[in-house]
Amino acid sequence: MIPTEELERLEDLVDRASVVYLATIDDDGFPCCKAMLAPRLREGLVRFYLTTNTSSRRVAQLRVRPQAALYFCDEERFRGVQFTGSVEVCEEARTKELVWREGDDEYYPGGVADPDYCVLRFTARRARRYADYRSVDIDL
Amino acid sequence: MIPTEELERLEDLVDRASVVYLATIDDDGFPCCKAMLAPRLREGLVRFYLTTNTSSRRVAQLRVRPQAALYFCDEERFRGVQFTGSVEVCEEARTKELVWREGDDEYYPGGVADPDYCVLRFTARRARRYADYRSVDIDL
Repeated sequence: MIPTEELERLEDLVDRASVVYLATIDDDGFPCCKAMLAPRLREGLVRFYLTTNTSSRRVAQLRVRPQAALYFCDEERFRGVQFTGSVEVCEEARTKELVWREGDDEYYPGGVADPDYCVLRFTARRARRYADYRSVDIDL
Repeated sequence: MIPTEELERLEDLVDRASVVYLATIDDDGFPCCKAMLAPRLREGLVRFYLTTNTSSRRVAQLRVRPQAALYFCDEERFRGVQFTGSVEVCEEARTKELVWREGDDEYYPGGVADPDYCVLRFTARRARRYADYRSVDIDL
C-alpha cells in the first residue's frame, strides 16, 4: 500500500500531465518512446486508458509485445513516476464507449465505432518515482 | 541522406529540447523511459552524449542491454523525433573531459574524475519523426 500523502502526490503528478510517455518494444527488440495524450481515465494508479489509432505501428507492436511503461513527468520540478506493466488493445464497443469524448470525431470521423479508434488499457504491476535526484520503488 | 530543410527542422527540435527521453530495456525485459538532461554534445544526428551517474540502475541495465532510443519532443507543437540505436557507457578520461562543464561538480563532487560521473554515448542507426499527426521514417 502507498501511504496517503505519497499517493496524493503521485495522483497529482499523474492528473496534471497533459502528455504521457509510452515506452514499448519494437519489432527488432529495441525500446521505443512516444508522447501520447494523457490517459482519459484511470482506476487508482493501476489501470490507465489511452486512445490511439488501431492502424498505428505502435498497436501492431503491442499486440505482439504487450510489455510497456507509462512515464509521467513534471519537467520543471524534475519529478516523474514510471509505471511498468502491460497493454491490452481494446476494440470492443463497451470500452470504446467508456473512453470516448465529445469532439473525438475530429480524429475519428466514424465516431465511437470507427474501426481506426481503439483504446489501450494499461495495467501496472510496479512503479518507481523520481524526485530530489533519486528514484524509489513504489509498492502498488 | 536527409534533405537540408528537413535536417534543419530536426536539428532545431533537438537543440531546443532541455530534456530528452531515454528509453531502455530493464532486467525483466520491460521497456523503461526516463527524462534526462538534453545531450551535452552531438555529432550530426548520429551520435549524442549524455551525462549520468555511474552507480545508477539505468547504467547497470545499459551495460547488459545497450539497445536504446532517444526521443525529443516538442509537446506544444505535437512534434517529435525518435532515434533508435545503442548506448556505450564511457568512463575513460578523454570522453569524460570532452563532455564535462563548469559547475558539474555540484552533482559530481569529485570533479571530472569522479567515479560516479560517466558519459552515455548514444549512436543512432535509424530515426522516425512525428509531425502533423503522422510518423515518417528518416534515412540517416
